[in-house]
Amino acid sequence: MFSVEVRDRIMIAHSLPDPFFGPAQKLHGATYLVDVTFFREQLTTQNVVVDIGAALDVLGKTLKPLAYQNLDALPQFGSQLTTTEFLCKYIFDRIAEAARTGALGADGKTLSRIRVTLSETDLARASYEGAIGG
Amino acid sequence: MFSVEVRDRIMIAHSLPDPFFGPAQKLHGATYLVDVTFFREQLTTQNVVVDIGAALDVLGKTLKPLAYQNLDALPQFGSQLTTTEFLCKYIFDRIAEAARTGALGADGKTLSRIRVTLSETDLARASYEGAIGG
Amino acid sequence: MFSVEVRDRIMIAHSLPDPFFGPAQKLHGATYLVDVTFFREQLTTQNVVVDIGAALDVLGKTLKPLAYQNLDALPQFGSQLTTTEFLCKYIFDRIAEAARTGALGADGKTLSRIRVTLSETDLARASYEGAIGG
Amino acid sequence: MFSVEVRDRIMIAHSLPDPFFGPAQKLHGATYLVDVTFFREQLTTQNVVVDIGAALDVLGKTLKPLAYQNLDALPQFGSQLTTTEFLCKYIFDRIAEAARTGALGADGKTLSRIRVTLSETDLARASYEGAIGG
Amino acid sequence: MFSVEVRDRIMIAHSLPDPFFGPAQKLHGATYLVDVTFFREQLTTQNVVVDIGAALDVLGKTLKPLAYQNLDALPQFGSQLTTTEFLCKYIFDRIAEAARTGALGADGKTLSRIRVTLSETDLARASYEGAIGG
Amino acid sequence: MFSVEVRDRIMIAHSLPDPFFGPAQKLHGATYLVDVTFFREQLTTQNVVVDIGAALDVLGKTLKPLAYQNLDALPQFGSQLTTTEFLCKYIFDRIAEAARTGALGADGKTLSRIRVTLSETDLARASYEGAIGG
Repeated sequence: MFSVEVRDRIMIAHSLPDPFFGPAQKLHGATYLVDVTFFREQLTTQNVVVDIGAALDVLGKTLKPLAYQNLDALPQFGSQLTTTEFLCKYIFDRIAEAARTGALGADGKTLSRIRVTLSETDLARASYEGAIGG
Repeated sequence: MFSVEVRDRIMIAHSLPDPFFGPAQKLHGATYLVDVTFFREQLTTQNVVVDIGAALDVLGKTLKPLAYQNLDALPQFGSQLTTTEFLCKYIFDRIAEAARTGALGADGKTLSRIRVTLSETDLARASYEGAIGG
Repeated sequence: MFSVEVRDRIMIAHSLPDPFFGPAQKLHGATYLVDVTFFREQLTTQNVVVDIGAALDVLGKTLKPLAYQNLDALPQFGSQLTTTEFLCKYIFDRIAEAARTGALGADGKTLSRIRVTLSETDLARASYEGAIGG
Repeated sequence: MFSVEVRDRIMIAHSLPDPFFGPAQKLHGATYLVDVTFFREQLTTQNVVVDIGAALDVLGKTLKPLAYQNLDALPQFGSQLTTTEFLCKYIFDRIAEAARTGALGADGKTLSRIRVTLSETDLARASYEGAIGG
Repeated sequence: MFSVEVRDRIMIAHSLPDPFFGPAQKLHGATYLVDVTFFREQLTTQNVVVDIGAALDVLGKTLKPLAYQNLDALPQFGSQLTTTEFLCKYIFDRIAEAARTGALGADGKTLSRIRVTLSETDLARASYEGAIGG
Repeated sequence: MFSVEVRDRIMIAHSLPDPFFGPAQKLHGATYLVDVTFFREQLTTQNVVVDIGAALDVLGKTLKPLAYQNLDALPQFGSQLTTTEFLCKYIFDRIAEAARTGALGADGKTLSRIRVTLSETDLARASYEGAIGG
């Protein structure tokens, strides 16, 4: 199994309004380092998993609507708790859709799996990994 | 599959008294960076894999009896070779037990897998990954 | 010249309401990795620059009133632009005061300089360095 | 499942002569951080996955014919596009062969899997993972 | 003294044709992580050392003519040995000029010092630091 | 001012037998990442601060007598408290002597300063910087 991983980052505000989260119930924020890993069983004719430039471009476009935002005010999140885990899945869904619809090039449609990892501090991170199939 | 990973660290002394280990047969020591990853198929009702605060707390309590110790003198290790790999499994067993007995909260009992990674230098690390089921 | 450096972190929300800051004018947030470096010409009688445990404790207490906060709502910042640079100096002032008043132990009063570095992403960080003398 | 991971590095020149690669079609170069992970179901009698010293030695010997080379001029690569992904598989094949032929010690023959990861920048890396069986 | 540091990266080929450099005499390559630090005694009216966006932009424009190039073939380097140290100074000169001519904004002209650090592997890096004054 | 920095590492055991050190009074150990920075005002005729290969070699030879040792049992340390700060100065003295006596090449004698940094965990490190002049 081959993989390629690319990195970008966003700075956001949000709150986690459930007693479960203790002090993080209040409005605070985070820098998320976002690592996206693309998996493929066999390389393409150019000997790649995915075009790294296209992967960075898709990742940047996926993150742009979130960058410098207060997630509590974004309609797409409704009343969801925007935990790091939830955001991993949210970003995964958008990148998987980009792969299926050709935004990663024709070969992007045949990727087997994608993993999205968000590091919130030097001590804690979360990830979601799944098949890209719609 | 979702995961959450948390980090802590310990400084210990030990020896590896088998000719296999060359200069490491002598009493020496290590700083271990300890990364523990918790895996779960579906998020809990709070959209998390595990409470990060509880995870850091359980990890800290697991490492405390080892911190600033000479492992050669600890009865729980008997005459075992306390390699980095062995210590990964030892820490895994304690954290898996904490998960099963509710120290990570009620949801901790339904985690699917745990991985423990110990980095001994910038150039070498080991890990153990397994199901938490007792 | 000797130095000792310790690390902690905070997650905050804030806005930078000046057109200079482009998209960062909006309410957003950051994880700050906070590295504090203590400088001393000669070691103390225990061969240290400063007690690392006391240094981590003072750093933690300095950051606690900021952790999980919206800096826009904290009275101590008034209408200041809470840039990364500004926060370096703010944290520096509190840690230098702690040194002068003995919170780092008697030897803390004779430190020569302190540097505070805040990393806001993997690509950008700021610092402030100065003498501790009041 | 246990694993051990070791790190080395090489500095090489190469070109990627296919329009797919844009500016990287030209002769340029890279520092590759090379992380090799060895997997084993059960530890050996010395409580290890593999001798870390032997693993670093095999990795160093594997990389030596590539270090400070222009890959375009090396006969073993023919007209292959020496992408990061391709080089992961090339290094994997050599280390898997070393494992099968005993260069990692007698226990090296019973490793289950190997993963090779090459980081080309702080923002991009690739990997190949497979069973060692010939 | 305040500072701000930003990071970018380039991948280049070059040779170091002097027996002093041993195997690096041959055509090889490197990924350089490039960290540029800007120093200022007092913050500007926006509480910054320099506009981080402008700093990243100037750094990117400075590196673009070198990215994916064989430095041996670039006329600006003549027969100079393009060591990591030399490249630090080369990049410093261009960024200092950009500061003096206003490419970092009006406040960029009053920066006190700049430092350029190039990491060539995880084990080795070089830097040049100087005043910006022409 | 130019600089070059190189990295190596050692794993040691020691105790810090003074009540000041709390739990670290007991025999424990550490992995030290050792970064040595060499400073020079003007580059040599080969456009370098120091031969990186020679610097890594001198660093390795300096660390070898300490590697895999119990520092409490080494005669050169007598009853000194082998704190991280003390070890920075100890390693500095040996590398400065190597520079003065030509082990870094003829140009090594004209280095201006050296800094030695030891990281003991991901959260704490110490350094010593001084002129090399004997």
